[in-house]
Order: sequence, then structure tokens, then C-alpha cells
Amino acid sequence: MSHTWRVSATRLERDLLGEREIPSSAYWGIHTLRAIENFNISGVPIGHYRSLIRGLGFIKEASAKANLQLGVITQDLATPIAAASIEVRDGLWDAEFTVDAIQGGAGTSTNMNANEVIANRALEIAGFQKGEYDQIHPLNHVNASQSTNDVYPTAIKVSLIIEILALLEAVTQLRTALAKKSSEFSDVVKMGRTQLQDAVPMTLGQEFAAFDLTLGEDQSRLREIIPLLSELNLGGTAIGTRLNTPDGYAELVVKILSELCEHPFSLAENLIEATSDTGVFVSTSSVLKRLAIKLSKISNDLRLLSSGPRAGFGEINLPARQAGSSIMPGKVNPVIPEAVNQVAFQVIGNDLTVTMASEAGQLQLNAFEPIIARSLMMNLVYLRRACRMLADFCIDGITANREFLRSEVENSIGLVTALAPTLGYEAAASIAKYAQSHNCSVREAGLALGLLTNESFDELLGDIRGLTGS
Amino acid sequence: MSHTWRVSATRLERDLLGEREIPSSAYWGIHTLRAIENFNISGVPIGHYRSLIRGLGFIKEASAKANLQLGVITQDLATPIAAASIEVRDGLWDAEFTVDAIQGGAGTSTNMNANEVIANRALEIAGFQKGEYDQIHPLNHVNASQSTNDVYPTAIKVSLIIEILALLEAVTQLRTALAKKSSEFSDVVKMGRTQLQDAVPMTLGQEFAAFDLTLGEDQSRLREIIPLLSELNLGGTAIGTRLNTPDGYAELVVKILSELCEHPFSLAENLIEATSDTGVFVSTSSVLKRLAIKLSKISNDLRLLSSGPRAGFGEINLPARQAGSSIMPGKVNPVIPEAVNQVAFQVIGNDLTVTMASEAGQLQLNAFEPIIARSLMMNLVYLRRACRMLADFCIDGITANREFLRSEVENSIGLVTALAPTLGYEAAASIAKYAQSHNCSVREAGLALGLLTNESFDELLGDIRGLTGS
Amino acid sequence: MSHTWRVSATRLERDLLGEREIPSSAYWGIHTLRAIENFNISGVPIGHYRSLIRGLGFIKEASAKANLQLGVITQDLATPIAAASIEVRDGLWDAEFTVDAIQGGAGTSTNMNANEVIANRALEIAGFQKGEYDQIHPLNHVNASQSTNDVYPTAIKVSLIIEILALLEAVTQLRTALAKKSSEFSDVVKMGRTQLQDAVPMTLGQEFAAFDLTLGEDQSRLREIIPLLSELNLGGTAIGTRLNTPDGYAELVVKILSELCEHPFSLAENLIEATSDTGVFVSTSSVLKRLAIKLSKISNDLRLLSSGPRAGFGEINLPARQAGSSIMPGKVNPVIPEAVNQVAFQVIGNDLTVTMASEAGQLQLNAFEPIIARSLMMNLVYLRRACRMLADFCIDGITANREFLRSEVENSIGLVTALAPTLGYEAAASIAKYAQSHNCSVREAGLALGLLTNESFDELLGDIRGLTGS
Amino acid sequence: MSHTWRVSATRLERDLLGEREIPSSAYWGIHTLRAIENFNISGVPIGHYRSLIRGLGFIKEASAKANLQLGVITQDLATPIAAASIEVRDGLWDAEFTVDAIQGGAGTSTNMNANEVIANRALEIAGFQKGEYDQIHPLNHVNASQSTNDVYPTAIKVSLIIEILALLEAVTQLRTALAKKSSEFSDVVKMGRTQLQDAVPMTLGQEFAAFDLTLGEDQSRLREIIPLLSELNLGGTAIGTRLNTPDGYAELVVKILSELCEHPFSLAENLIEATSDTGVFVSTSSVLKRLAIKLSKISNDLRLLSSGPRAGFGEINLPARQAGSSIMPGKVNPVIPEAVNQVAFQVIGNDLTVTMASEAGQLQLNAFEPIIARSLMMNLVYLRRACRMLADFCIDGITANREFLRSEVENSIGLVTALAPTLGYEAAASIAKYAQSHNCSVREAGLALGLLTNESFDELLGDIRGLTGS
Repeated sequence: MSHTWRVSATRLERDLLGEREIPSSAYWGIHTLRAIENFNISGVPIGHYRSLIRGLGFIKEASAKANLQLGVITQDLATPIAAASIEVRDGLWDAEFTVDAIQGGAGTSTNMNANEVIANRALEIAGFQKGEYDQIHPLNHVNASQSTNDVYPTAIKVSLIIEILALLEAVTQLRTALAKKSSEFSDVVKMGRTQLQDAVPMTLGQEFAAFDLTLGEDQSRLREIIPLLSELNLGGTAIGTRLNTPDGYAELVVKILSELCEHPFSLAENLIEATSDTGVFVSTSSVLKRLAIKLSKISNDLRLLSSGPRAGFGEINLPARQAGSSIMPGKVNPVIPEAVNQVAFQVIGNDLTVTMASEAGQLQLNAFEPIIARSLMMNLVYLRRACRMLADFCIDGITANREFLRSEVENSIGLVTALAPTLGYEAAASIAKYAQSHNCSVREAGLALGLLTNESFDELLGDIRGLTGS
Repeated sequence: MSHTWRVSATRLERDLLGEREIPSSAYWGIHTLRAIENFNISGVPIGHYRSLIRGLGFIKEASAKANLQLGVITQDLATPIAAASIEVRDGLWDAEFTVDAIQGGAGTSTNMNANEVIANRALEIAGFQKGEYDQIHPLNHVNASQSTNDVYPTAIKVSLIIEILALLEAVTQLRTALAKKSSEFSDVVKMGRTQLQDAVPMTLGQEFAAFDLTLGEDQSRLREIIPLLSELNLGGTAIGTRLNTPDGYAELVVKILSELCEHPFSLAENLIEATSDTGVFVSTSSVLKRLAIKLSKISNDLRLLSSGPRAGFGEINLPARQAGSSIMPGKVNPVIPEAVNQVAFQVIGNDLTVTMASEAGQLQLNAFEPIIARSLMMNLVYLRRACRMLADFCIDGITANREFLRSEVENSIGLVTALAPTLGYEAAASIAKYAQSHNCSVREAGLALGLLTNESFDELLGDIRGLTGS
Repeated sequence: MSHTWRVSATRLERDLLGEREIPSSAYWGIHTLRAIENFNISGVPIGHYRSLIRGLGFIKEASAKANLQLGVITQDLATPIAAASIEVRDGLWDAEFTVDAIQGGAGTSTNMNANEVIANRALEIAGFQKGEYDQIHPLNHVNASQSTNDVYPTAIKVSLIIEILALLEAVTQLRTALAKKSSEFSDVVKMGRTQLQDAVPMTLGQEFAAFDLTLGEDQSRLREIIPLLSELNLGGTAIGTRLNTPDGYAELVVKILSELCEHPFSLAENLIEATSDTGVFVSTSSVLKRLAIKLSKISNDLRLLSSGPRAGFGEINLPARQAGSSIMPGKVNPVIPEAVNQVAFQVIGNDLTVTMASEAGQLQLNAFEPIIARSLMMNLVYLRRACRMLADFCIDGITANREFLRSEVENSIGLVTALAPTLGYEAAASIAKYAQSHNCSVREAGLALGLLTNESFDELLGDIRGLTGS
Repeated sequence: MSHTWRVSATRLERDLLGEREIPSSAYWGIHTLRAIENFNISGVPIGHYRSLIRGLGFIKEASAKANLQLGVITQDLATPIAAASIEVRDGLWDAEFTVDAIQGGAGTSTNMNANEVIANRALEIAGFQKGEYDQIHPLNHVNASQSTNDVYPTAIKVSLIIEILALLEAVTQLRTALAKKSSEFSDVVKMGRTQLQDAVPMTLGQEFAAFDLTLGEDQSRLREIIPLLSELNLGGTAIGTRLNTPDGYAELVVKILSELCEHPFSLAENLIEATSDTGVFVSTSSVLKRLAIKLSKISNDLRLLSSGPRAGFGEINLPARQAGSSIMPGKVNPVIPEAVNQVAFQVIGNDLTVTMASEAGQLQLNAFEPIIARSLMMNLVYLRRACRMLADFCIDGITANREFLRSEVENSIGLVTALAPTLGYEAAASIAKYAQSHNCSVREAGLALGLLTNESFDELLGDIRGLTGS
């Protein structure tokens, strides 16, 4: 399993386990090499998670500046470290972030990877060779006043905020598509259903408006998470006691980070609590799960309402996106909602992963933050893509079978509900029973039973649109 | 929170924490009292779980007999202990099993409760007073050669086997009801559906046969669990090293237990492994989850097929069981399948509880077996009741809308599938597209496009029942 | 399965399925009878959930008053209905709420049960006989302007708010106990740990303060749920279109309900959305899950820190609550935290049940609200009891092994961390390695390697308390 | 979102939605193009799943041969189709399998992708140009007698069997490593623990033997799944009615597939049931979850037993794999078990995804098989890698602190357990209590209380190894 690097040129690096050859071209160093060799699980390197690397860049730049202001490092160190951090932030070195996303060590390998890449890039910027750590050291300088245990969760939080903002935009796009359909269908009456049984009339526009608004509530929940994610333990170092930081470091680095990110971060009330606590990640996961549930329910409804084309509900038509079958010619399937359902199932599964990882935290640290981070980032990206896919490839092209929908209302037995306040529950029920057993309309049943006249029917049930309250 | 027993007469008992008054009428003793006071969570005492108490009775009787044979206790002790154990087995003292089902201590309080009840009842049988533990002692005599850590999981296993056998019978009843409907509907053609879209013809009988058979597979999985549950760690005592048991005790007590239960139990290969391992409980829970998924899927299908009565699939009618609405007169809802769905959701949730409790086991014991036991017993009982409810109150009374179903097949576009081998996929697809856009039948579309004659249509699609392969 | 009521006197009631004898003594009627017969799953009647019945009482009283003001019912009806509702609210008729908590029908049977009990009790109050529904009718009068689909979720919300407030108090009690220990242990230095490996010093007081504060965050999350639960769809009736309500009813009934409950409820922005949406229940469940995760983590830590007494961490002592073993004399186990862990596993499992039930909602209603309600109420009650149990029976009695804890710090290798800023990471690591391999102290290792003098050691590491930042 | 292919040469293809340019170099066609454009979720193409593509190759070859034998296609078609299928099976065209693993359509896009790649490659083999579908047609010829709904689940099953066999080997490697340590530590006595409290003596060898054997049981469960996965619905086509297959096709193609795979596949008893049923996938997922739980429990124990090095259990030493901290020099963390824990959490989360996807199946098909397949394949691969990682990088290098372990036993209070059969529970408990409160040994306590003599102590407790039963 040991990797062999086909390289002519190498440099020698050393850690507490001994010495290793590192490819001269690599910006990562011996700590990263150990992790590459140790962890080969998902095959997805952390550099795949752009927003996480972006977060690390921001934090390392902020730390360099805070360390400079407080005299921990000199200008000669701070300048190239900050410059290299900015390059990392902007994605120039993503390919150097090579540790597997599923890793032991509570994120240490991720932080080590960042420290090494930044140190080596800073060395180049400062005119040195990669590996000249006596000049700029990954741990003594790049990581000064820091610990994985404050840097890593902070990077996750920065990353999650970035991704939540992107998800919010995608939900807005989806809501806009739904709202447009709500307007388009505002005059289409249909039967509302409870428990899959015909209930009382509504409009198709109302149905789509409910989809739109329910997602709006999830947006509110998503937005409420952001301030919680903005409380940082940065400056707490190993366990939150601020060991090895100069006075005022935590406050300063959070202030600088806020400026760099143009986002108001704050220092957690108690850094020891904040270091071991993963509650905010559980909350974030819960909100994403809630959104997934909503998207799945909407997708279920769309699939049901478009079922058929002839032996189903047949109320709406989803746009055809691809041939639906390798054996049944002409069949078109609701493939887009089906994909959304599957995203939802993955998101809900990943929420359980987050739950278990959070519960498993022990004493002063949760060692399982890497899988929490991966799960949340997967969920955020998948949900974003699912929202855009659903808007672009499904909602925008939905059409309604207006005549069919109206005829369903007119033939419906559920209309008797509107008779109950006047006739009483039992009399209305007898009309319903008669209509069902004689396969006739409510009007016909009411007349047959002598409970309605044509005039009273028209008065009570003549205005179907009026019954919808819209 | 300390309980006060409004009793005139009490006896004094003592444990390592001190002395306590016990009501004279109580068969339980001071260890049970401590547990009653400690645990007040679910409000459901262990005596509620008849099959668990039954299992404890069997084990304590078997232990008394094995201890007698191996000289650990005398006949004067063994006889009343066995007699009392039989009474416990048969449910005479369920009300004395008063510890909350959710309890700390890895089942110790349950075992203590059993030891105390049996000791005190045995004392009475032997002509002594309750509490005369110098004569018959809950721990030194009733619990001789035993530990909670082998008795408790064994009792759970006995209990689960009893409940699985009862569940199997309930599934058989449900399958019988489904099979009867399968026969009744064997000549009812209908449209099969994939992805909620009209696919190709089948019979309603085939649909119900699939429900029947899929549950048969779950029965097979349930039966396969029983031999796994029959491997016991009884005789391993505290951690599986057989400490404080005479030579041959484990083998003997398992043999006697098998005779008493008329069921072939065996001793696990490695008692240390068997003491800490909860894998078989995870497997049991998984099989119950699988059954729950199936029942939920069947219930979903029943609700969908009976949706309407007019603005839905309207293929079948579930028997009316109660008025469906407090506001909509005449509405009838699929309340029985809905209840089954909810049972399934609870079973799946409890499976997660079992998963987490199993994962949390540490070193030589899983301290969380009480919640595992409760979850499994809840699932077994709920599933059993759900199967019987579904059979009695729903399946037995289902009727089919035969004419409507046939008309759906005849009007279906999905019939073009049977044309594809002859005409090719693209030509068949063009017929489908024409029929859909012109709102006409496949025959009409085929004729209009010149791809079919009336004769070729009749030859290829005339025998709809034949297309179902039944 | 049909129930036979051993009663001499009965009254005859009728629904759309036919006639049935109802025991004269029963306040419930034929709709409740149907449900009793249909659902026999959990064995727990809805009357067990006091706060749910309380919620129903509030709503029925508010509805009667709103109906009176708007002329839907007369004073002669409103007065006894309101009086009966108040009795229901106050728990006088809990035993009449007999429908199983796991029920199909989206809560209709619960609402029917309430309507019938209130109607019959109102009849008595008004001087009539039970069953004289021509005088006071369960549906036409008690349920006027209402539907299960707005009443039932509203009752759940009222119930959840009541239970959340009670839970908050229990969490406060637990936090108070933790805070007291935090003060008591504020001067007890110990080793902090990350990933179960010795890290850097902290105080035991800091550890307990973190427990206290992390639960404070969960209290904040719980409080944030209450306003979300206070948005009601009451007045929306069947699907949110306000069918069969007079103008202004929804606004008025919510206003009256707020007054009666002395809690500010509001009407949801869109009643159709609010009728089918269960997002707030998912959010509530998520917050309870988060709290459960925290309690489980704290319990895990307590069990770990008290492991031993000799071959474990041995840092703290939990109060002995009961003998820990039926075979190992003198053994005392952490039974209280173990019970808390199991509550957490149940809560997390039930959260999955809520998730699945919510995702399964279709079109204009979620038919699975009964299992959602049951899951949430179980979680709230269990968590409340777990918090009080943990405070009363565990936290309050914890003691610390102060001398042992100090000695662990003094012997710790983790102290080298504080040397790194001065000596650099590599030199500090070499001291650590030397101390570990030579089984000596950091001071001895530093001196042996010539990297420290006694003076520099004292300066850097002499003030252990200072290293904790406390 | 529409893709633009920077290609000079294209060919024109057509489906029911219209015409599209396909890059001439592409072996996939228009149906695959539609899917590429529709689904952009995970970023992982199906070609990433080698064993799935291998399964598809086997099936398409078997189908070609069966179709030839039964006269559905000619030799001129069968020969190049089979040849191309073999190339697909062997991985030559994985890069052409470009559809996203998360896709709507129940696997249709995957089957379409296979049909198109094989058709175009067969065309080349037969001397034609890609796209000359009038010669060899993806659907009429490659897919003859097939439907996605039988091909796709069959391919998943073939794939799962391949991966399970690979996983079994990895578990064997891990078990071998554990067994080796079990032998190595067979004479190392230590304290066994229940509920994290000192219990009774055992050997470290026994502890590792239990790890070994418990995984052996999971291997048995894994092996039991293979026959269940070997029951196929191949030949059932769209919904299991065998529509569009010649007589005997299903039996023949399964026979040929068995020969090609050298594995005994069988035809399911009822093809309609088998088409919609995903029970076997649920069972497979459950077994993987069970294994994950075991691996997580073992990893938890390893982390606990190696906690320290000084303020922890300190019983064993895991091999150092990398520096453990960016701030704490010399710290070494249990990174390998931590990574295994995280794999377990992912596997358990994915099991929930499978559960939800399975429950969501409707009527004659489960549309969500793609996410089921992805979840299971991820779990199988991650678990395999985790087992090998744990064996190679952790178990193999574990050492024991023998002296420390022995001293813990000798100082243990748990030894009193072995006194109970002789002295009785209460007397033994009093010794335990005395030893604990006086901080002395059991021997000293027994002497002080006059309950033991040096001789009786030696007789009862002198042979510690004997107490372990090993």
C-alpha cells in the first residue's frame, strides 16, 4: 500500500517517525505524506471541497496577520505566509490538498496539509526553496497560535456558510419557478385531496403556491443557522484554554477573519465548550434534512399528479426529458423528481452519519469532524444541484390538463362538504353515499333524496372557484 | 422522588448502600426497590413484557436444576426455587416485575427483580416468610452459577423466539388473505405501472400474489434468525470466562433449558465473544425492519390503488371501517393501511435505536441491552398486530372495479410495447406519440400511421390476458 | 376482535356504516367505538397524553366561543360546550379518550373522540341525556367551523409547547447541578484529552462548565422552536381553504385561543401550506435529537471519567445508586448515565420515525401526524425525566479524586506543548519522545536532553493552573 | 447547463424528443446524452463502479447468446454484440459510462448507456461505423428480450456478489491479524470490564480472540446473502410478465449467465414479485451495517485500551502512524481506528438511505434502485478498505503493556467475585467495600475483616490465570 513516487528529484523531510523523501514538486510535506499513506477510503481528496480550502486560506491569512500584530511572527514571515494563504483561498493549489476526505485524526491531516502547502508556497514567494523549514516552518510559523482543533472546525464553518448562501440562491430559483406556475395555474380548479381521497376543491395555483411557500420556510431555517455557524472557537487552540496564544489573539484573529470574509464572525462564549461541541453541525444537518424532506414530498406529489398518462391522476404533465424505457416505446418517466427523491434519501442518510459522529465525541474534542464535514458538504452540494435541476428541467415546463381537472371537481362527491353547514353532517353524508352507490353527481343525488333543489344546489355549490377561497 | 409505601407491615432488607423497609406483601426486595427509585422513564414495567418474564422463569428453573445436579445447591433449595420459577414463567407474578423497561445497569435490575421474586415466592413455598434470605437467598441460591450478563441476554433471546413465532403466524394469516384475493382477482386485467406511469398489462391477481410472495420471503428471513438467537452465552457468567460455575455447568444448563422450552438451544462457540456481542439483535432488528418496509410498501400501494373514489386511481375499494372526516360527510379513508405505515415508521426508528445501542457497547459487555430488548419487543408486537389488523380489517374486504380496470388497459398506450418486437422500437414509439397527442387508441394511431392493420392489431394485441403471461 | 361491552344499559348510535350499541356510561360515541375496534397497536390510549388532551380542551373551548361570536352556534349550545371543554382541558375526562395513540386517519379519531366526549358532557351539563345529539351534536355543533385537519395539528402544537416548557425547566435543573459542580471543582487541575490521548491541562471545573453551557445552547434552540410552533392553521378546515367557516373565524379563534392559553399564537401566512406541512415537527424533533446527542455525550464522558475504580480513568466518583451486579459483590455501575444514553438512543430513533412520517405526507395533508405526535411527546417526556434523573441521582453527588488528578497532570507528557513556542515544535517533540521511552517526567527529559534547565522548566511549566487559562 | 462538445466530427442521432449531434468518437449515443444533461448531482459517473459495468457486460453477453439460440437475433448480430459485451465486462470502455450515479429513471439511463456503448462497439467490430443502428440497434438488438427493469437489478446483484467476495477476503485478513495478536497475548492477564467498571480477570488474548470471532460471524452473515442475491428476475422484462421474450428465454439466459460468471444464479419463483422487490438489497445493507457496527465497536475498544499514554487505560499501544497534532508535539493519536469509526458512521447512514429508497418503491417497480446501488457499492468498498487499513496499519503493530496489566489485576477489587461462592455475596461485598474505602488490596481487606487467611486467599485467588478460564 506504500506509495512510490516516480520522481527524479526529491527533498528529505523528517517527523517524529523518521525521514521520508518528498517529491520536489510537491507543496505538501511529510505530514501530508503520512496521511496519504494512511487513509485510502473514499478516493476523494479534500481539495475536491473548494469551499473548505477557501476557508482554510482565509483562516491562515487571518492568523498570519494576527500573529504579526501581536509579535508572534515577523513581517518577513507574515507577508509570504499571507500571500500564500490568499493563493490557497483562491484555489490555485487545490490539487496539492491530497488527503482523503475520510481521515482519522480530527482534521489534523487537513490542517497539516494546509500548513505545509502554505509554508512551501510562502518559501517560494520569499525566494527560498520548498522544504527550507528553518526559514518558514509549517508548524512554528504558519500554524503559530493555532491548533487543528480550532482551525479545522472554523474552516468547516466558513465553508458551510459559503455553501448555504449558494444553496439559498438555488432554492430561490426553484421558488421562483414554482411561483410562476402558481400564477399561471391560479384559475385552474381541481380537487384537493386528503389521505389520497377526494376532499374539497382548490386551485392548482394554490397547490404550487404551497410548494413555493413551504420552501420559503426552509430558507428561513437555513438563514437562522448562519449566525450559529458564525460563532468560532478560533484562538482556543488545543482544548479551548488558549494555550500558546498571546493575550488578545482569539479576539483579534476573529476580527481579522470577519474583515477578510466580509462576514460577522464572533468568538464563542466559552472556548472549551465550543471546542468539543458539534451541536451546530447537528443543527445544520437537521435543517438540510428538513429541506430534503420537503423536496422529496414535492417530488412525490409531482410524480403522483402526473401519473398516467391514462391510468393515473393525469392532472399535470411534466416536460419529457428522455425516453423512459428501453423496452416500452414512447414511455416517458418523471426522471427529474425521481432524482430529487434520491438526493433526499442520501441527505437523510448523511444526517444520520452526522448524528452518530456527533454523539461519539469524547471529552474535549470530537475526533469525527471529518465525516461530519464531508456529510454536510455533500448534502449542501447535492441539494443545490437538485434544486436547480428541478427548477430547470421540470417545474419550468409543467403544463396542466385544465378541462380534465375541472370535470373532476364537477363530478366530485367531496362537494357535499359545502352542504353540511346547511343540511347537517348526516344529511350531507346520505347524499354522498347515494351519489357513490348510484354513480351519479351530488346534484342528482340531492334531488333524488329530496334534500336539494336545483336552486339550492346552485346557491350552495354553483361557484366552485368560490369554494377554493382564492 | 423517594417512594413512600403506604403499608402497615414491612420487612427490613439490606444492601451495600444500607437498609430499607420493604412492604411485607412485596415479593421483590431491596435491589428492586433501588431500581424502582432510580428509573422512572417509560412508565412501562418489565412485567408488561410477558415473554421476557416467561424467559426468565425458564432460565431460573433450568439453573436451579443444573445447580442441583452439580451440587451447587441442595434439593431443599432447588425444589422451591424451581417451583417458584415455574410460577413466574406462567405469569402468576408479572405484577411483581416492577422495574422500568428503560433502565441502566445492563439488565441487572431485571435479573435482581427475578431473583428476589423467585426467592421470596420459594420461601413461601418452602414454608418460610418472605425475606428470610438466610434460608433461600436471591443471589447465593437463586442466582447461583449465574450473572446478569448471561441470564439477561438469554432471557431476551427466549423472549424474541417466542415473539417471532407469534409474528410468523400473523404474517401467515395476512398472506392467506392476500392469496385469497389473488385467486379472486386472477382474471381481472389491469395496467401494470412502473415509476407511476402506465406500463404493460397484468392481472390484479398477479399484483396480490406478489404481495403474498414477498411476505413469504420475509418469513424465511425471520425463520433464519431463530437458530442464531438459539446460541446462548448461559454459563459464561460475568464476562464469559465461566467464573463461579462448576465444571460442565454451561453445557448442562443449556441442555436443561432446551428440554424445558422444547427448543434446541446451543452454547456459543466462544462465551467471551458471545457476552459482549449484540450482533444477533442487530440482525433480528434488520429482519423486522425489512418486514416493516414491505408492509409499508404494500400499504402505500393499497392506498394508491384505492385513491379516489373519483379523482384517483380508483382500481380497488378498501372496506369502509369508520367515517373518514369530521367535516367532510361520506368521506372514507384508508385508515388501516395508514396505521400500518405508521407502525413501519416506528419499527424503522426503533431499528436505529438498536443500531446505536449496539454500536455503543464497550469492552466485555453491552450496557444498553435493555433498550435493545424493549425496541425489539415493541417491534415484534406492533408488527404482529399490524399484520392481523391489515388482514382482518382491510385485505379480506377488498373489492375490484373490474370494468374500469379493463377499460384502462384497452385505452392504454402502453400496449405499444407488445408491438416493438415486430415493428421495432422507433415505429412503436411513433404510434405511442401519435396516440398521446391525438388522444386516441393504439389501434387508431397504428391505422392512422399506416403501421398497423386491424388484422395485425388483433393478432398482436387482441389477447390482452395473454399479454399478462398468466 | 370485536369488543363486547359488559353493560346492562346502552344507547344506540349511528354512522354511515350502520348502528351500534354504546354503553350508557360512555361519553365517547360511535365514531370512537369504530376507532377502538380498528386500532389495537400500542395499547396506549390518547388519554395517556395529558398535554394533548389539554390542547384539545383549549381549542374546543376557543372554537365554541368563536362560533358563538360569529353566530354559528347559539349561546345555549356554546355555554355547555365551553364548560365541557374546560373539564376536558383540566383532565376530568382523560379516561374517556380511549383511541390508540397509533391510529390511521390523520387524527380524525382523536378529534372525533374529543367531539363526542365534549358533546355528551355538554348534554349532561345542559340537562340532557348522553346521546341526545339532536340537542348538541358532536360534529354539527362541537366541531362547527372545524376539521380534524386544523384542530389536530393545533392540539399537537399546544401540547408540544406545554411539554417544551416543562423540558426547559428540567434542563435548567440539570444545568444548575452542573454549574454547582463546576464551581466546586474550579481549582481541580486535570489533564484535558483530545482523541482519548493526554493533551494539555485544564480544570475539572472547566469540564463541568462546558457541560452546563452546551446544554444552555440547546435551551436556546428549544426556545426558538416555540414561536414556530405557535403558527397555526386553525380555521383552515379540511385543506386550508377555510371552507365552512364564517368570515373572520380563523383570525378570531386564534385570538381567543391565545387568550385562553395565555400564549401568543398566530395564524399561518398560508393555510393551505400550513395544513400539509409538517416542517415544524421535523424541526422540533431535530432540536430534541440535538439535546439527546448532548446528554448522551455528557453521559459517555461521565462514565469514562468514573471508570475503574482502579483499572480505569478514576478521575471522578458517581454516587452509588444500587448494587451493580448479581455476581460481582461490591461492584457499582454508572446506571444513571447508562439510562440517559438509552433515552438518547430512543429519542434519536424516534426522530427517524418523525422524518419518515413527514416525508410520506401526500398532497394536501400528512396522514401520519399521529405517529409524529406520539414520537415527539415520548421524546419530550423521556428527555425531561432523564434530565431530572441525571441531576438528582448523579450530578449532585459527584466527587473528584483531586490528588490523583493533580498527579496525572504533573506526570503528563502533554506539558511539552507549552514548551513549543519557546523551543519549537521539533525540540518539544523530542522531549516528549524521550519522556515516553524513558518513562520519566518532562522535566527529567528536558534536563537529560539539555533542552531545559530547572529554572526554565519552572518558568514555563511551574504554574499548572495558569496553563488552564482559568 | 446544456453541454457543448468541442468536437469537429459528430453524428446525428434521434429519439422521441428530437435530434442531437453526438461526438463521433463517443460510443454512447443520444439516450446517454440526455441523461448526462439531465443528471449532474454526484459528479461520479457509473463507469466508476467497475463491478457494476462488469455485471452489465456479463448480462449483455448472456442475452446475446440466449437471443441467438432462441432465434431472436442472427449470428451476424450476436457475435459482435457478445464480443463488445466482453470488452465492456473487462473494463475497456469504462470511460464511456458517463451517466451520473445518482439518476432518475430506475436505471434506464445506465441500461441505455450500456446498450449504446455495446451497439457502437459491436458496429466497429462488425466493420460498420458507429451510429449505423440500422445494422446493429441498441434497443432492438442489444437490448432484445430485455428491459432495464430486469437487466439493471441483475447487474447490481452481480456487482454486489463480486464486491462481497472481495470484502470477505479483507475481513479474513483482518481476522488473521487479530488471531495473531490473540496468540501473542494469550498469557497476558488483565482486568475484564463490564459497564467500564473493573469486573473479573481475563487475558488480552481472549479479548482479541473475541474480536476475531465476532467478525467471523459477520462473514457467515455475508455469505448467507450471496444465494439470496443470486435469485434473478432476468427475463421478466418490464414488470415480470416476460412480455416480449420468447418461450424459455428467462431460464436460458440465467443458465448462460451462470456459466459465464461461474456462479449459480437462479430464476426467482415469481418474476413480478422479484421485479418490484428490493428486500434483498435491504438485507445486504443490513449485513453491511452489522459489520460496520462491529468494526466501530472494536475501534472504540482499541482507542479506549490505548488511551493515555499516562492519564488513560494505557493497556496497549497502537503503532504510531503520523504526528497527532499541529500544536502538541509528540502526541500520537489512534487515527486508524478513528477512520474506521467514520466509515462505520457512513455505512450506517447509507443503510438508512437504502431503507428509505426501498420503502418508497411503488407498484410494479422501485424507481430508486440507483441510489440503492450506489449506497451498497460505497459501503462495500469503504468497508473493504477499512478492514485492510485496520489490519495493516493498526492491528499488526499493537503491543501490550504486560506488567501494567498484571499489576491492575493484582490490585483489583473485582477479585472478590471469586470469593462469593465460598463466603457468600454479602461477605464478599463487605471485603470489596473495605478495600475501596481503605485503598488496600482484597487480601489486606479480607485479613482485616477476619474473613480470609493468607492461606484461604492463596487457595481461592492465588491462580489468577486460572480465573480467566483460559
